[in-house]
Order: sequence, then structure tokens, then C-alpha cells
Amino acid sequence: MPEKRRVRFLPDDITIEVPAGQLLLDVALEAGVFIPAACGGSGACAQCKVKVVEGKVTSLAMEKLDPAARAEGFVLACQSRVISDLLIEVPKSKVGRKVIPRDEQERKISMATPMESPVVPQIDPMTIRVFMSPDAPKLEDNTSDYERIVRTLKIDHDIFPVSADLEILKELPAEIRKDNWKFSACLRVDPIPHLNNNLYKLIKITPGHLTKPRLAVAIDIGTTSLWGELVDLETGAVLARASRYNPQISMGDDVISRIVFALKRDGLDRLQQHVVKGLNEIIEELLEKSSQPRDSINYMVAAGNTVMTHLFLGLYPRFLRQTPYVPAAQNVEPVSARSLGLEMPAGSYVMVFPGVASYVGGDIVAGVLSNGMWQSDEMTLFIDIGTNGEIVAGNKDLLMTASCSAGPAFEGGGLQYGMRAAPGAVEGILIDPDTLEPMLKTIDGKPAIGICGSGIINIVSQMLLIGILNQNGKFAHDLSTNRIRKGKSGYEYVICWSKESGLGEDITLSEVDLDNILRAKGAMFSGYLCLLEKIGLSVDDLDKVIIAGAFGSFINLDHSVNIGLLPDIPKEKFLFIGNSSLKGARLAAIDRSLMEKSRDIARAMTNVELSEDPAYMDNFMAALFLPHTRAELFPSVKPGLLKHL
Amino acid sequence: MPEKRRVRFLPDDITIEVPAGQLLLDVALEAGVFIPAACGGSGACAQCKVKVVEGKVTSLAMEKLDPAARAEGFVLACQSRVISDLLIEVPKSKVGRKVIPRDEQERKISMATPMESPVVPQIDPMTIRVFMSPDAPKLEDNTSDYERIVRTLKIDHDIFPVSADLEILKELPAEIRKDNWKFSACLRVDPIPHLNNNLYKLIKITPGHLTKPRLAVAIDIGTTSLWGELVDLETGAVLARASRYNPQISMGDDVISRIVFALKRDGLDRLQQHVVKGLNEIIEELLEKSSQPRDSINYMVAAGNTVMTHLFLGLYPRFLRQTPYVPAAQNVEPVSARSLGLEMPAGSYVMVFPGVASYVGGDIVAGVLSNGMWQSDEMTLFIDIGTNGEIVAGNKDLLMTASCSAGPAFEGGGLQYGMRAAPGAVEGILIDPDTLEPMLKTIDGKPAIGICGSGIINIVSQMLLIGILNQNGKFAHDLSTNRIRKGKSGYEYVICWSKESGLGEDITLSEVDLDNILRAKGAMFSGYLCLLEKIGLSVDDLDKVIIAGAFGSFINLDHSVNIGLLPDIPKEKFLFIGNSSLKGARLAAIDRSLMEKSRDIARAMTNVELSEDPAYMDNFMAALFLPHTRAELFPSVKPGLLKHL
Repeated sequence: MPEKRRVRFLPDDITIEVPAGQLLLDVALEAGVFIPAACGGSGACAQCKVKVVEGKVTSLAMEKLDPAARAEGFVLACQSRVISDLLIEVPKSKVGRKVIPRDEQERKISMATPMESPVVPQIDPMTIRVFMSPDAPKLEDNTSDYERIVRTLKIDHDIFPVSADLEILKELPAEIRKDNWKFSACLRVDPIPHLNNNLYKLIKITPGHLTKPRLAVAIDIGTTSLWGELVDLETGAVLARASRYNPQISMGDDVISRIVFALKRDGLDRLQQHVVKGLNEIIEELLEKSSQPRDSINYMVAAGNTVMTHLFLGLYPRFLRQTPYVPAAQNVEPVSARSLGLEMPAGSYVMVFPGVASYVGGDIVAGVLSNGMWQSDEMTLFIDIGTNGEIVAGNKDLLMTASCSAGPAFEGGGLQYGMRAAPGAVEGILIDPDTLEPMLKTIDGKPAIGICGSGIINIVSQMLLIGILNQNGKFAHDLSTNRIRKGKSGYEYVICWSKESGLGEDITLSEVDLDNILRAKGAMFSGYLCLLEKIGLSVDDLDKVIIAGAFGSFINLDHSVNIGLLPDIPKEKFLFIGNSSLKGARLAAIDRSLMEKSRDIARAMTNVELSEDPAYMDNFMAALFLPHTRAELFPSVKPGLLKHL
Repeated sequence: MPEKRRVRFLPDDITIEVPAGQLLLDVALEAGVFIPAACGGSGACAQCKVKVVEGKVTSLAMEKLDPAARAEGFVLACQSRVISDLLIEVPKSKVGRKVIPRDEQERKISMATPMESPVVPQIDPMTIRVFMSPDAPKLEDNTSDYERIVRTLKIDHDIFPVSADLEILKELPAEIRKDNWKFSACLRVDPIPHLNNNLYKLIKITPGHLTKPRLAVAIDIGTTSLWGELVDLETGAVLARASRYNPQISMGDDVISRIVFALKRDGLDRLQQHVVKGLNEIIEELLEKSSQPRDSINYMVAAGNTVMTHLFLGLYPRFLRQTPYVPAAQNVEPVSARSLGLEMPAGSYVMVFPGVASYVGGDIVAGVLSNGMWQSDEMTLFIDIGTNGEIVAGNKDLLMTASCSAGPAFEGGGLQYGMRAAPGAVEGILIDPDTLEPMLKTIDGKPAIGICGSGIINIVSQMLLIGILNQNGKFAHDLSTNRIRKGKSGYEYVICWSKESGLGEDITLSEVDLDNILRAKGAMFSGYLCLLEKIGLSVDDLDKVIIAGAFGSFINLDHSVNIGLLPDIPKEKFLFIGNSSLKGARLAAIDRSLMEKSRDIARAMTNVELSEDPAYMDNFMAALFLPHTRAELFPSVKPGLLKHL
């Protein structure tokens, strides 16, 4: 972790503690200090100039700033990084007032507290390696190669019963003789359900006393993205990470369109081949980054939603999407990696996480495994916000789960200028309550080409507080700004003028977009409420809210509560776990008892089909309001608080 | 079984009882009545005319016989079949004297008594079929299709634990819905070694309440021939039989040359593909003959020698042929039939019989299973005479086994005019002790093109008794016949002159051929002796000798004892079981506990590597004599008994 630095902004006199190296524009955004930044941080508009009164920054691309200003100590906030403690003066003409008056304590937890998994794995992976040196055969003892290995494993190592597929038997005679009957056997340990015993499957023979690490690949198969980690099975260490888009995207953006594609001729095969192609690229990258040999990979543990898991394995997905929403299978045996087309060694295999239901998949089970709620006394709400928002409520005594068709609004889908969190996406925004002008921060400082989930939450929250937007998600028309105007789809707010955008056109947020956003956050929130009601609890009974998903890392808690996406409870209860599905896959890869635990967790999770629950529909309708029709649920939110009159 | 008829030959006054329908030439051969038949029975030479004094025959191809003779009641023995009891007169000029004076009792058992397997299988095959009608899923119970089946099998049928490969999971959602949640599940029952419990593997789902038979294919993979039976698993009945040459023959005649081929580039793959091609043809023929559908086949049980099993599965055979003769594997898991290239349904599989050693394979274990010696108190010698002669001695308390490199002499290999038992092969022969002229019977009555195993045994035995051959296997030169002459390979006997042969050249048996024959019979006999010595027994302690193999059905016991191939013990102790390997495969297909029993049998069989045993070499040298150096071992054999002076 980089060291902390204190940055004090004048004339607002707001002080914030941030990691060294952070961009000054981000610091101002986080502090709520308005600096005009129409270009999103690309250094093009030169509006964001501030004066460094005390302390040191490093700056790039200062050409837009005249030498005189530079000499006076001015820098561009979007091009300058914090080196030491700083005193910064924002030029008088550009200073708005403090946007959200907060004390230090509050500001520190405007983001959810990052958490690591509380689950500590034993280093006890799904394979074991045994160094063997049986007596070489002689005429008095010329039992077959395979039976000699089986016998030695039983007598010398107390490992039995052992079995082997034909593929390994084919390689065995040559391999065991290469180093004169000294070899390392790799065996898969398969627990026998109901029998409290293991079967051992011989999956690889390597000549000599092997000391290279054994490796596993932990994978999260997301609808949009694939994430992978290379895990050293001797130490549990992660040797490399890689990710990329799921190549299935070209066959549909969401799970429903993928299912539709799968039911076409060859569709399922093509989807299967595409995701495998992506996974092979990830494996390639992991090996390259870690300089590890491919043949050290023993297995892959993959977690994905139920549709992704079906498509990866080639299971028929049709009945996932029609009531009563039945998967083909959940607890699938280890599958030969090569039979799926994965570029992994002969004998290596894939283990997929079991899911709970058609829309609560192995990724959520892996998430629950890694977030530890299954072993905790604390009443926990676990949420994974994505195209389908999945939620789990409970603790070690009870686990209830549901999915809500939130729609893709928080992934930028379904909005005219929505986009995924990619370069050029507006991710940070601050609106000056006086001028109603926005200060923009885009990903990688590229000219704005759209707005992503965190930007959407920020802008809606601020519009509500400033009074640009009413609680129904409609714009005020009577304000003295040209940013609010009547567009093709009703009223809209111009986030970025065409001259400053990377699109060559105005980037806007319309009332139609707002409708989608309200529906998305309403679906999630009414999901929590409904699920908690089933247990007889309210949001105030929650000890913890754990937020998962890549998206989660950008969520500002204040803004998320303001729009009614997250419950209005003390901020310190919010934790951010990141990609909990991948974390769960890694845990199970390191400790096979946790794979078994996942099966127990999946069985213990009671799924509620919200879409078929009348109470959910009532709750949903009530949630189509900012923050909510029932104001008592959001006591800390004050719509119009910053309204400028 | 056809009814018996009595045939009395004059003037020798020999009476024999034979099945109705038998060829008169065969009857004379069996009775030891000499009738000239130089053409082998093709009806071409017309030398074999005999007069039907009483009774009725049916005759074909009588053109060679002049109408006058026909009117007098003459027929060609090689073209006439026994209808009623007969009185036959052999024309005076052609009558030899009785070749081997024997009483009725002796004659009846000149062939080994046919036996069926004494092992009675339970109808309890390797798969079970369960009709299922679980409740259809609903919102309150939308567990996955596969888990619903697993749950129903456990709760309603007490069947667990159940597993399934990915292939069946892929088909499952569609199949179970075709008849509205009524379906038949086929499960493989896998005993878990050491755990006294079964695993159940779901291998097929068929809509509705299936009543069609479930089928298995029992296979004997011979080096030369493939034999198959289609077995109804509900009744144990054999629905069809088929056989053909092993297509691997084009890549080598014997197991050693196949191994050599396998070690060439692509050799193993090609051998594997060839045997699978032959097996697919057998499956095709079995289905056609029985009018059964292919998808009713659940599995194949295959027994073969260790080399054949390796080549069928694609296992590396190199170490089978170099000391200390180690197979790659013996107890192989069920193998997916389709992965081997077999045209069998998805989910169906192959089970191979375990072998004992490199040259005592699963065919012998299957033979022991079916001949019942493993459950008998009687001290039994089991012999399978082929290119490799395999022998097993023992009873339920002890089983010792060995293989002898007899060489292919009894399959016609290694002799200048030797051939397999195919049309045109001389299989029966009778030499007139007066004229030393042979009476020949060929397979299918085709002009002679060579001599096969049973013909070889017959001719050598008679030559020894008549004194043409001395006990060292050398010809007498001083006899008044042009049949014995000096040829390119030393002295030889002309079996068939070129004008009567189908080859256009003389068919002979030389002293070089005789050397090979002595070596072959010596290898077998010293094998029995050596093995019995290890147990502390002699041939006189044997309660039974069971002869197996297609070849065994043609063996004349008298002749075989005369040349020292079979031990000189009471003839009623000899039993002929036919293809005991195929019989064993069928038993295991019907009753899975017998497959498990086979594993016990294979483990219980102690293999003796004769080729490395000095005592064997001594025994072998002593056996290179007719019948044997130690005359006391063959008290009933009288070389030169029929010598004409």
C-alpha cells in the first residue's frame, strides 16, 4: 500500500487523506471539490488548473498551460499526481461551494471497506503427488506396470482404491522406465458421496522425483469477462492473473440472448468453443507471465453463473429460461480438460462449482464460500450487482438467495450513452450546484465517449441532491442552464458537449435512461427487502453488507444510498470483496475440502424465485422512486439538500 | 443333436455309430476303414466308390460313376451322407486291413467328450435398468434434471451413490421430457475395490417404460480369429453368433510379429483400428442376424490374450516381449466403446478380462472361469493349443499357469504345406499299412492345397504306428513305395500328387516339417509335465484334461496321444469345451459377479515363466521323440504296431 498524504483544498478548506500517487482530479472528486473538467481528464480543455501553494506534485502534458501560470505554480489537476502533503488553491472564479459537507470520518468510508476472504484454506489440493520407486520387475515378480503402481501405492503409501483411465495407461510403460523406476505419480482425490471415503485416480506419471510446482487454474467465467489465476498448489500462492472479454459476447450480450443463440443450429457448440478459446488465451497468458510450464497444470476450478457453466460444458440450456427454470445439472463430475478443448495436459481436468438454480449459479456459491457468511454468526447481505443482480442473505444457520433481473443499466447497457467500464467512460462526476456544470473524470483520461456504472450512480445521486431531478426521476425544466433541454426522448441533461467528447456528439442522460436506472436499482433493492422479509428481518438487522463484482470496486456508498441502490445503514457495515467468484475458485483449488463445502453450501441455499412472487412486484413498484417511496427506509438521504436558490 | 445311425463296413466287419447326415468318407476315416480318396473328397478321382448293401444314403455329383455301377448300388463315399443304418461293402481290391483294432468303447471316445460350462450364471448383469417417473419440476422444487434423477434413485430405489459423465448430462434434459417425466434409466454397476460397495454410473436415459431387451456383446479376440455372441441380458440367452478373421493378420501372423509392427510409426494405432474394424463387422452381423437395434447394446465384454488386449486398447506392448515380460496393465476400468471407435451407443462401454502375465491372458482367465476348475475339487489340466499353447493346472485350492512357445505347427504354420483349417486343407487322413497309400479328407471336399493341424496329428500318428517314421521323426528309406523320396529338405512323404492337388504341385511332409512338429508337441507336453511337477503331481494324478480352442474340436485323442501331444491317460478324462474364452466372456456379461470372480481368478493364478526354467528345457529335450524319450509315460502307445512285413 502506498503511503498516505494529506491534501487540503482552498478556499473550500476541505482536507482529505489519499494514497501518494493519486491524480489530483480524482482527489478533488473524492473530496467533493468542484474543478471544471469538461474533457474528462485528457488534458485537452485546460480548465482544471489549480495552484500548488505548498508541497510537490509530478505533472505531465502541461503545454496547454501558459508559462506565466506555470511559473506561478499552477498545474492541471487532471495531469498531476500527489507526491507530498499538499495545499491546493482552486482559482476563485471556478470555486463552487462545498458539495457535501461531511466530517473526516464520513469521508473515509465513502467507499466500501475492502475485505479479504476470511476463509483460510488448508494446503490440501484436489491432487496429490507421490514419489515412487517400486522394485523393478523381475521374472519372479513380473506383474503389470499398472498393478505394480497400484500395489506400491497401497502397501507403501496406504493409498487405495486407485483407478486410472486408459489414456494414462497408454503412457505409463514408457514414463516409469525413463528414470529407472523412479517416478512421481499425480493422483486426483475423489470423495465418494455418502461413503465417507476417497477414490484415487491416477492422472499423470512423470519420470524422476518431481519438484516443480503443481499448478491449478482458478477461473471466473463471467457473462462479460473471464478472469483467471494461476495457483501454486504447494504454497497456495497466486503466481499470475489474467483476464479478457468472454468471446461469447459476439453471440449475445446477456445470458438470455446466449441461450437463444445456443438453441440455434450449432449454436451451443459455437458458444462452447468460444469460451474455451478465451480460456485458452488466459491459460497462455498465465503461463507466460509466471514462466511456468504448461504440463505442471493439474486442474482447473471454474465458477460461473448457471448459464455460463452450461455453455462451457455444452449442457442443453433451454429449460433454464422457461418456468420453472430447471438446470440440466449442477454437481458435475470432473471433466477431462482436453475433451472440452482446453489446452491443458493429458489427464488434467476441470471442476465446476455447483449452482443453486438457473439464475443463482456457481459464481454465487463460490462467492458465498469466499465471503465466509456460511461460517459466520453475523447476519449478512451479499450482493453481486451485474446484469443479473444476485443476492444472498443469511449466516451459518440459514442461507436464502434470489436473483433480480436488474437489467444491464449499471453495466452501461440499455442507456443511450451507457457503456462498460472501458477507456473513455465517464466514471467520476461532480456537478457544481451553482452553475450546474459537471466536472468529469474518464477512465484513462481519454475523451469521453459514454458513461459507465459508477458515473451513472454519481450523477443521479448529485442531480437528486441538487434538485435537478425530482424523486420520480424527472428533470426540473425551470433552471437557468442550457445543460437541461428537451431531446428526442424527453428531457435530458448534457454531460459532455460534442466539442469536448470523443464521439463528436453530445453525451446525454435522458429521462428514458433514468427510467431504466430506476428499474435496475428498484429490482435490486426490492430483492434485498423481499429476501429479508422471508427471513423476518429488515435492513437494520444486517450486521454486514458484502458487495462483490468488478463493478463493486467503483461504487461510492453515499451516492449508491442516495439513489436507493444500497440500504441506508451505517457505512462501516459495507465491505467490498472484489471478484468473490474467482476468490472462491482459488480457495477450492487450494483446499479440496472447500470444494466439498461448496456442495454443502449450494444445497443449503434456498432459492426464492422473485419473478413469481407477488410481494416482490409490490416492493419493486415502491422502489421506482428516488431513493424510495417509503422515505423511512432512507432517513439519511435528503433530496434537494444542495438546491441552490 | 441328430439321431445316431449304425454303419457296418465289410469285409473288415467294423461297425461304428455316427450321427445321421455324416459323410460316408468321414465315417470310414473315423472307423479306420481305408478307402482310396486321393482327391480329398471333391468327387474328382472317383476312387472312393463303395456299395450300399443295406440302407439308404443321399448322394451328390455321381457323374464320375458309370451307370452300371450306380445300378449295382455303388456310390462315391465322399459324396454320400448317412440316412439310415447301413451295411457298406468296400470293393475287394481296395480293402486294406483294419488299421487300428479297437473295441467299440474305445472308438466312441476317440474324440474328447464335449462339455458345457459347469458355471451357472445368475442373471445379474453389469447394468441395471430402472423405470422412473419423478414428479415434474415446479417452482417450489426446481432442482436440476440430473439432481432430480439422483434424488429419485436414492429415495425411491435405494440406489446410490450415482455419478454420470458429461455426455449423458448433455442428452438428459431432452430425453426425460419426451414422455412427460417417464423414462428408463440404465446404470452401470461398478464395484469399488476394497470397499465392499458399488458405484452406479448413469449411462443412458430412454423415454418411456423401456421393455426392449438390453444386450451385451461377448467377444473373444483371438490372434487369428474374432468370435462374437449377442447376449440378451434379461434372459442370458445367446441371440446370435458371428466370427471372422482378425484383420490384424495382414500386419503379422503371430503375437510377436504384431508387437514388432506396433512399435513402428503409427503401427499401434493401425493395429487398434484394424481389430476394431473387425469387431464392428461382427456387431453389425450380430444385430442383423438377431434383428435387434444397435442402441439396445449396453456393453461389450472382451477376452483376448495379453497382446491382443493391449493392441485392442492401444496399450504400449513393447515390454511384453522382453524379459521379464511385463504387461502395461491388466485390470483396466470400463472404457467408453466410442472412444475405441466401436460402433456402439453413447454411454456404452467395454470391459476386458484381466490377464495373468504377458503370455497368459484374459482369454485363459475367461477359459478358467468357464471351465469351472476354480470351483472344483478335481485336479484339472486345462490346455489351449494354438500358436502359444497356454496351460493351467490345479483346482479350487491352487491354480498354476504357463505358456509354451509351441510355434504355429498345429495351426499349419512353419510347415512347407501347412495351412489353417480352411477349405482344401487335409484334415483327415488314413494310410493303408499295406500299400502306404493315403486316404484323404479335405475341408469342404475341395481339392487339397495343404494340410492342417488335425491332419498333421493324424498322419504323424499313423506313420509312427505303421513304421514309416521312426521315433526320432525320420523316415524309413527302404520301403517299396514312391511316396517316400528324397526331396530338397531331406526325406519326405508325398501326401497328394500334383495331378490330384489343387496346387498343381505335390503336397509333401518333410523331415524338416517333422522337426517343427516334434518341437511343437514337445513344448506343450513338457509344459504340462513341468507345471505338474511344480505342484508335485504327475499326469496320472489328473482327474480331468479340458481342451479348449477351435482347434480342439478336431483333435483325435488316439492320434494325439500317439505322437505325445496329449498325456497317455484314460480317454474318458478328456473333455472338449470349445471356445472357453468366448464362453467366459458370455458368463461375465450375464453375471457381473463372475467378472469380479475373474479378477480373483487372475490374481490366484501363479504364472511360471517356462522359457526361463532350466527344468523345462530338460523336459523339452526329452519330449523331442515319438511319443517321448521316457516310454513309461506312454504305456499304451506301440510304435510300429501296424508295421507290415
